[in-house]
Amino acid sequence: MSDTTVTTHVFDAAVDLFPVVDDRTEGHTHPAYANMVGPFGGITAATLLRAVERHPDVLGTPISLTVNFAGPISDGPFDIAVRPVRTNRSTQHWSIELAQNGEVTTTATAVFGLHRPTWSSTEVQRPDAPAPADLHRSYLPEFIAWAGNYEMRFVEGDVPTEQSGEHTDSTSTLWVRDDPARPLDHASLTAMCDVFYPRAFLRLGRMLPAGTVSMTIYYHADPDVLAAQADRPVLATARAHRFGNGFFDQTGYLWGEGDELFATTHQVVYFKP
Amino acid sequence: MSDTTVTTHVFDAAVDLFPVVDDRTEGHTHPAYANMVGPFGGITAATLLRAVERHPDVLGTPISLTVNFAGPISDGPFDIAVRPVRTNRSTQHWSIELAQNGEVTTTATAVFGLHRPTWSSTEVQRPDAPAPADLHRSYLPEFIAWAGNYEMRFVEGDVPTEQSGEHTDSTSTLWVRDDPARPLDHASLTAMCDVFYPRAFLRLGRMLPAGTVSMTIYYHADPDVLAAQADRPVLATARAHRFGNGFFDQTGYLWGEGDELFATTHQVVYFKP
Repeated sequence: MSDTTVTTHVFDAAVDLFPVVDDRTEGHTHPAYANMVGPFGGITAATLLRAVERHPDVLGTPISLTVNFAGPISDGPFDIAVRPVRTNRSTQHWSIELAQNGEVTTTATAVFGLHRPTWSSTEVQRPDAPAPADLHRSYLPEFIAWAGNYEMRFVEGDVPTEQSGEHTDSTSTLWVRDDPARPLDHASLTAMCDVFYPRAFLRLGRMLPAGTVSMTIYYHADPDVLAAQADRPVLATARAHRFGNGFFDQTGYLWGEGDELFATTHQVVYFKP
Repeated sequence: MSDTTVTTHVFDAAVDLFPVVDDRTEGHTHPAYANMVGPFGGITAATLLRAVERHPDVLGTPISLTVNFAGPISDGPFDIAVRPVRTNRSTQHWSIELAQNGEVTTTATAVFGLHRPTWSSTEVQRPDAPAPADLHRSYLPEFIAWAGNYEMRFVEGDVPTEQSGEHTDSTSTLWVRDDPARPLDHASLTAMCDVFYPRAFLRLGRMLPAGTVSMTIYYHADPDVLAAQADRPVLATARAHRFGNGFFDQTGYLWGEGDELFATTHQVVYFKP
């Protein structure tokens, strides 16, 4: 783990890893990013991305990441196997597994690569949103520790309260940034892709058992674009497509300054209504 | 491979595999599903799903699948390693690798599981579409062999011709079914999730180098729903979110009879304009 005299942001402490040696590294859960059972999925995804970023053979920056939440992660240390399966001229494919006591809790695949300027076009529309300062800050219940590390200001689809009834759609749009503020990078963007509380809570107007089964991120922003964003809030929006048979799926978009689409993210979630 | 006296549909021949023994099996590319370089990505994805389905320890039916196209697959035989990483009470997580001559060409992860009836709701809207019989059949250029196995009738976003100019959006909506007709199952649905020609062709009005890097499918239909669909056409629609830096991403929806959302599918694609 890093030995440093400057103050380490809690996010960096949470995704900190030992150096990657022979495709293996180790980390430790962080209490500040605890969820109801085990850690916040977003911090686990960010930690797996960070393992690739810290691998000595890494090529370029993230293009895609898929994380499968196979079983609960207990508070404590964990082992990560991070293997470059195939390196091409401009893309590199990774297989990643997180285990505790020899039992795999999380699997992932990632594609990294070199980005080159090409014709570009963004077809999806950024939702309209008032300035963050014009919106109140929302809080998730205190026992959801990880949410305390995010300043969330909802434009629509705020966290249900005891007075909330059913809602006709599952869209939430919010300004989000790390609290305390921290310059955005691919790891923190990865965690933010999982910042949406379960869409079933919004539709049904109440909390219920739910957990992400599999999550995918497509990264559109290169490091220069993220550096220009610095620590300003990201506009995040997500909506479910279909609920049924104990699962629902959703798609989210994370927008930066200048109508830049930073990432598109998808997940399938287990729920018990 | 199957030894049978009834006629085997070309799709079943293409995804046919030796029995899975010790988490390993073998298959062979099929010329009818060839793409410009190597096989159609959809048939590779379907073959990997089929490897899980044929594993003696499989639990339930598909919930999600992610396939990463790491390198080209040559015409000929291939080896598949298909490993149940973790089996829970109602979900099972799989890691899959396809290799030729010891070199990995394709990695994948899948989640299978038991579906149970719950509250359900479909939030996305099925696009309006005339009946298939009221639309002409489209053909991709003859050198794209796999496309000959699909009857495609476009509602919008038809295949560009030499006269096509640039297009303002990248939406294609089409009726699609196997040709010859074949009752839908999870394997054929998987292949159909990759039936959309690259969205950059539509936007720029011309063919250009492009290939899927990573593809994810969330399955909403259980086997009963697919059985009820039988061999009727599926309404498939897809649109890109953002093009830039040599990649674009898209989301697609596959709809069955009765406004049933069968699958949501996402992919990130390399392109060279």
